Amino acid sequence: MQVLSTQTSYLESKIAELDFPLEPANLYDPLRYFMQLGGKRMRPMLTLMGAALFGKPAEKALHAALAVEIFHNFSLIHDDIMDEAPLRRKKQTVHTRWNTNVAILSGDVLLVKAYQEICKQDAAVLPELLAVFNQTAVEVCEGQQLDMDFEQQSDVSIPAYVEMIRLKTSVLLGCALEMGAIVAETSLENRKLIYEFGQHIGIAFQIQDDILDLYADPEKFGKQVGGDVLANKKTLLYLKAKELATPAQLQQLEDLVANNDPQVKVNGVRNLFDALQIKQEARKLMDAHYAVALKAFDSIAVPEASKKDLRELAAYLLVREI
Amino acid sequence: MQVLSTQTSYLESKIAELDFPLEPANLYDPLRYFMQLGGKRMRPMLTLMGAALFGKPAEKALHAALAVEIFHNFSLIHDDIMDEAPLRRKKQTVHTRWNTNVAILSGDVLLVKAYQEICKQDAAVLPELLAVFNQTAVEVCEGQQLDMDFEQQSDVSIPAYVEMIRLKTSVLLGCALEMGAIVAETSLENRKLIYEFGQHIGIAFQIQDDILDLYADPEKFGKQVGGDVLANKKTLLYLKAKELATPAQLQQLEDLVANNDPQVKVNGVRNLFDALQIKQEARKLMDAHYAVALKAFDSIAVPEASKKDLRELAAYLLVREI
Repeated sequence: MQVLSTQTSYLESKIAELDFPLEPANLYDPLRYFMQLGGKRMRPMLTLMGAALFGKPAEKALHAALAVEIFHNFSLIHDDIMDEAPLRRKKQTVHTRWNTNVAILSGDVLLVKAYQEICKQDAAVLPELLAVFNQTAVEVCEGQQLDMDFEQQSDVSIPAYVEMIRLKTSVLLGCALEMGAIVAETSLENRKLIYEFGQHIGIAFQIQDDILDLYADPEKFGKQVGGDVLANKKTLLYLKAKELATPAQLQQLEDLVANNDPQVKVNGVRNLFDALQIKQEARKLMDAHYAVALKAFDSIAVPEASKKDLRELAAYLLVREI
Repeated sequence: MQVLSTQTSYLESKIAELDFPLEPANLYDPLRYFMQLGGKRMRPMLTLMGAALFGKPAEKALHAALAVEIFHNFSLIHDDIMDEAPLRRKKQTVHTRWNTNVAILSGDVLLVKAYQEICKQDAAVLPELLAVFNQTAVEVCEGQQLDMDFEQQSDVSIPAYVEMIRLKTSVLLGCALEMGAIVAETSLENRKLIYEFGQHIGIAFQIQDDILDLYADPEKFGKQVGGDVLANKKTLLYLKAKELATPAQLQQLEDLVANNDPQVKVNGVRNLFDALQIKQEARKLMDAHYAVALKAFDSIAVPEASKKDLRELAAYLLVREI
């Protein structure tokens, strides 16, 4: 995908140009550090592509795109504190490299910086950009809270889990695309459709992520296989298994959760999931959300040729071999 | 001051009407709790009075006023984590009553809510409201970082200290007033002047706060006298004493800082400060900022009669017997 590599370099150069002040160093050094840790820059890319889809030059949505990426990094810095995560993209998290107070405050100022970027877009579209951005920011916080709440709950239903990932991760993809669409001043109907597309691609992608934890090719995956299993995370696979298991299998699952041998644990869970056909069940749900996304995308009133890049991007994100 | 009591009840009723969702309870219960802890509501009052000063009905600036109050509460929730403060207004802080993660995340969502309130003002004034609000929010974070940095530094100059309190507490008073002025669509010159007024009133008020810690009438003050001294805080008084002390007095001050007997410590520090005339020195600096504030206020191009309420408010805030 030519558009991906071109726009990624463009975004990386613009992210590198974000000029945080030198002082106070404990406030801004962490931001210089964290914003350069990399990542796929998928969210700001979606904003650029959302504008282009509706006939606006992608770079006209640059500040909205940067705002989305900055917001995403703010949420990662604070989430890492809450999740006590020592590493992010194989580098130390902000609260580990500095301390929790620094991570709280530099995250706070980063959220304000996101708003400063949005305010660089035309005043005519500002109220609509802010409406979707504010709503999304609130929902992302709600999703993170639900995620933390679920860790303490023994019973989490699958609809509740999907709602949690929708809020925590997927609405931001919808928002990213819609902000591009707002900059392009397309119809409200088109805006709703592109938002739906992004949101359901996001849910499908997150379900895929849960599947890949246990079923990815270790060489391609780049993460420890079974990491979620070892961390006793309540992923979609785990919740589905609990739903489908016989009492004996439930007991087996509980024993595996308590098992301290990583290899026995991961293999045991995988065997149990295989017996219950969990991967197929999860794949079905993932495909269903992908289908909803594509249906919304198909309904967008622009020529098919304009849709090529985003259609390819969605396929690229979701056809990984699983 | 009639205007104070009328507007305070109006603001309290509007703050009580802020409708936070019921779920997730761990996200929104802390906000319902914290926003009702009270306080003087001085900042939103300034926004209302800023609008009224320039001939706009105060309630036209209500959402800007609420945004300022919400922002202030966001910053208190996060500052309380960083300062490890167990109490705020004699009630438990959010991180104490819930936990640190809850305080981080509910603070985050509260900051977004502040932006949602601003967005309820007319689109015509939105870019200018956001410009001053964003800049102020960044500065408040910088001020909090400087405050934390200073705790680790042995040498803090008085200009650096004043710059810290300007950022941490005073710019928000200027911002509150200017947002009212923006809603009233007054001239840029008037906006700058009312901002300067608020900022310097804020600095004077903060210096007064430092003085009151040691020199207030305990019955009127409502806080433990010498609280800053007991916490070894680097207040303006302490920094001025370090500047003026002879080597022998410096040694005496160091010994007092290390002393564990509260009464000996507070009385010893007060005697030392009296010998150095620290209260008079601090008062001089406070009066200088009050004078700068009044000079800006005098220059504002509106009839003197319109200025009555704000002039009285400034005098009310700053003439406490010290």
